[in-house]
Amino acid sequence: MSERTVQLVVSYDGTNYAGWQIQNDQPTIQESIETALLSITGEKIRVTGSGRTDSGVHAIGQVVSFRTESKLSADVLRRALNAELPADIVVRSSRNAASHFNAIDCAIKKRYRYLVQEGRVNDVFSRQYAWFVKKELDFDAMQAAAQHLIGEHDFASFEAAGSERVSTVRHVYDLEVLKSERHEFDKIAIEVEANGFLYNMVRIIVGTLVEVGKGKRPPEWVAEVLAAKDRTIGGMTAPAHGLYLLRVDYPESCWLD
Amino acid sequence: MSERTVQLVVSYDGTNYAGWQIQNDQPTIQESIETALLSITGEKIRVTGSGRTDSGVHAIGQVVSFRTESKLSADVLRRALNAELPADIVVRSSRNAASHFNAIDCAIKKRYRYLVQEGRVNDVFSRQYAWFVKKELDFDAMQAAAQHLIGEHDFASFEAAGSERVSTVRHVYDLEVLKSERHEFDKIAIEVEANGFLYNMVRIIVGTLVEVGKGKRPPEWVAEVLAAKDRTIGGMTAPAHGLYLLRVDYPESCWLD
Repeated sequence: MSERTVQLVVSYDGTNYAGWQIQNDQPTIQESIETALLSITGEKIRVTGSGRTDSGVHAIGQVVSFRTESKLSADVLRRALNAELPADIVVRSSRNAASHFNAIDCAIKKRYRYLVQEGRVNDVFSRQYAWFVKKELDFDAMQAAAQHLIGEHDFASFEAAGSERVSTVRHVYDLEVLKSERHEFDKIAIEVEANGFLYNMVRIIVGTLVEVGKGKRPPEWVAEVLAAKDRTIGGMTAPAHGLYLLRVDYPESCWLD
Repeated sequence: MSERTVQLVVSYDGTNYAGWQIQNDQPTIQESIETALLSITGEKIRVTGSGRTDSGVHAIGQVVSFRTESKLSADVLRRALNAELPADIVVRSSRNAASHFNAIDCAIKKRYRYLVQEGRVNDVFSRQYAWFVKKELDFDAMQAAAQHLIGEHDFASFEAAGSERVSTVRHVYDLEVLKSERHEFDKIAIEVEANGFLYNMVRIIVGTLVEVGKGKRPPEWVAEVLAAKDRTIGGMTAPAHGLYLLRVDYPESCWLD
């Protein structure tokens, strides 16, 4: 039987999952998708995500690839998956990809969003979807601080201690601090786009920018944190539940056989 | 002991509650607040909401009043309540009111918001917070349709069958159909402000406007529905989980003893 490669764009509410990657005895996104595919195609399919998301982390546009012998069209597959999957995982789109397409190896750029809810009172609708910081944050200072991180830098200070990587250099193409409002509660959205991310990089960037927003440090401090190449210098690691994998980009060549 | 009257503005996620009003053996917002007040003041306090919200309905600005002998300042009371209350109920503000202030009797105007999520794919983050209508809706037609309901009218067609009311005339001051976007998913927010609401009035208005948005009826049909004074003519009652009590207004005189 001939196999083909399918690419999915998947959104999920990470609240009730132990992250993307399959684990023993804990619900994961990967397992949910593989179980749904087994039920639809009868095949034991292993799916590849563009990256692991941690427990509690959400996705708006996670990209997933897999190979299948199924003759179902990409769109029929999407609808069948959405009928099988639990309500907190949804396949937004589905298409046939080049046979060599692989969601993790082909990725050239990713974008994350992080939501911070500032102020005196927690927004009950965002308690699992934004980090509540019980303080008014200095938005302009956070925007100024963010500028220091744009470009190609060694982000060793923004990697979880104990990680093993050949290189900690990454290119941040874009780092935006945006005002966001919902249900009458003020929020700050921090969006980071880069050619790759170190472990906990977005969450440490957010924790560091929030230190500046609180007025505990000036915006220039972020340049010092970056230069130190030492995780102990920067801010805390912001909690998982404010983080969203927003988008993954692939080169055109990945779509051609 | 001398009593005083306190006014709270409360926000809650209605998902896990059988509505505002106390019931036997089911969790309600009113009971949660009264339990918290008992624990803080030692008093068995009966609280009054500006109106009952149904099971699953949310509030951004529900107004609550009660009388207490407690000497705690309004702001200390707010913080103590937020420490006691479950995470899905939050007191946004608290202040001392005139002794005769009563959240239901003094209300002169209320505003509700209803969120509709349109499109092909459900937004996983809004599955308990917006009504998912699996279709692109005609926004302009919905806006045109809404105009027919603004003003003082007999809203008998927009009241749940079997309700008992002396009068079904209400004055709708404002009815806005707004575009709203969140997490890359399109939403339509419908906001209605009136001097009072019949039972299920907002949800029937929304169900009727969505019929127009789907292209099943022209905007002018809404004027026919209104004129018919018959609940069976209009659209379905939109589900509870898209509805939010946004704001309640009181006259200045209610603040003066």
